[in-house]
Amino acid sequence: MKIKQTHKCHGGDLQIWEHGSTALNCPMTFSIFLPEASKTENVPFITFLSGLTCTHDNFTTKAGAYKYASDLGIAIIAPDTSPRGDDVPDDEAFYFGKGAGFYINATQKPWSKHYRMESYIADELYHLLPKNFPLNKDNQSICGHSMGGHGALTLYFKYRGHYKSVSAFAPIVNPSDVPWGQKAFKGYLGNNINAWKQHDACELVHSAKSTNAEILIDQGLGDDFLGEQLRPEIFKRCCEAAGQKINLRVHEGYDHSYYFISTFIEDHLIHHANILSGNR
Amino acid sequence: MKIKQTHKCHGGDLQIWEHGSTALNCPMTFSIFLPEASKTENVPFITFLSGLTCTHDNFTTKAGAYKYASDLGIAIIAPDTSPRGDDVPDDEAFYFGKGAGFYINATQKPWSKHYRMESYIADELYHLLPKNFPLNKDNQSICGHSMGGHGALTLYFKYRGHYKSVSAFAPIVNPSDVPWGQKAFKGYLGNNINAWKQHDACELVHSAKSTNAEILIDQGLGDDFLGEQLRPEIFKRCCEAAGQKINLRVHEGYDHSYYFISTFIEDHLIHHANILSGNR
Repeated sequence: MKIKQTHKCHGGDLQIWEHGSTALNCPMTFSIFLPEASKTENVPFITFLSGLTCTHDNFTTKAGAYKYASDLGIAIIAPDTSPRGDDVPDDEAFYFGKGAGFYINATQKPWSKHYRMESYIADELYHLLPKNFPLNKDNQSICGHSMGGHGALTLYFKYRGHYKSVSAFAPIVNPSDVPWGQKAFKGYLGNNINAWKQHDACELVHSAKSTNAEILIDQGLGDDFLGEQLRPEIFKRCCEAAGQKINLRVHEGYDHSYYFISTFIEDHLIHHANILSGNR
Repeated sequence: MKIKQTHKCHGGDLQIWEHGSTALNCPMTFSIFLPEASKTENVPFITFLSGLTCTHDNFTTKAGAYKYASDLGIAIIAPDTSPRGDDVPDDEAFYFGKGAGFYINATQKPWSKHYRMESYIADELYHLLPKNFPLNKDNQSICGHSMGGHGALTLYFKYRGHYKSVSAFAPIVNPSDVPWGQKAFKGYLGNNINAWKQHDACELVHSAKSTNAEILIDQGLGDDFLGEQLRPEIFKRCCEAAGQKINLRVHEGYDHSYYFISTFIEDHLIHHANILSGNR
């Protein structure tokens, strides 16, 4: 692991790291914000999964999260959204290939060699981060935006006990049934729709436990992708049917951008901190 | 004037505008954040001048300022840092030519046709903005970073009554005496050092009035440019000699980046709001 940048920020440290990923077979970059509290104790942390076209950089520079993370004593990790490099296959669509790993493990060629973002997040980084930074492995949560909201919700349900809470901004909740998800799942997983369902939050929520923490979702009503790609009300109905508590908040006028995320990120960090703090 | 983007943000609106600048003879882009209060009244506003290599976009996306601007009911304008376009001459150095207008009016060819950032900020935008947006022309302040800190300080002293207060992050305070400023001033203004002094905050402060508001300056001690290009202690001594109140704060470990700005921008907006609010 190699540190590429470090910046003091809100009393803590924002660092950019590069490492060779065994899950993805390529070098990867992530950012980590370590609050001042991490100098004396292992702190709780949140993994933030970004959306289509993003790298680690979008959340890192645009979300305005670190003041709140600093106040709450929480670390935040922002990984990239796909494998990278000249050897990694790509596609012309912005919603498939590089920048669009969908947080699943591809089973189809030529994607299956590198496109293993599920293993990268929920296994490789899950173990690597607490080993290399002053993080409390047993006290972590997950959050994401758009495709990263899909990632956060599905990894939360798939990896029981990994993440104490989950929240999302404008998530893709039902990828099997919307164009972005269908293109990606067909490419990465093939035509078997039953395989798709294992990576669809609206399916996975049926395994929810009554002890699960409430899920917080924020959605802008001025979001261009709301009607065709996102449709969070479908997930809300699935949650209610499964006995999973959900707080879906909708916001007049807000769009899909980081201006929307920066407006509500404080609420998400407080949401997670309230659940994590009990375990510090 | 043409609106290019609009995003709801912290209850207000972040807008990106393009317009044909008469001062610069080229199309220019700026961002404006209008807090919710601007829907019912003309609000006070701050012009934020960015540093070398920046466009309007750096402050707009990275500073994390709009939550505080929203809370305080203040608008913020972020202009570009130089004229733009294929017709505009440029230089290989990142600290001269495009992205490096230095907020002065060039007198030397080929720069003098377009490089008139002083007139653009202190005359053209000064009149254009309150005419087109719900802003209180008589209630505005100016702030900047690095080269933009130089711009904010010098325009504050040169344009008496335009700006009620000034603050800066890691400003170039004595451009006549440091490499970045010398290269720019020689190119834009020629070899006459007396002409340079009319654009140097350490010279201009001697015309300060005892009624001037205190100047707030933040400087990171981990800033790579501190010793050679910035040296704020020189300006502090000039302020003290001139009877200009100054609060120069230095911060262990902080560098020259927007992570530094985002950490202290709240203090700057509160500093300006305290002075502006008396005139609302």
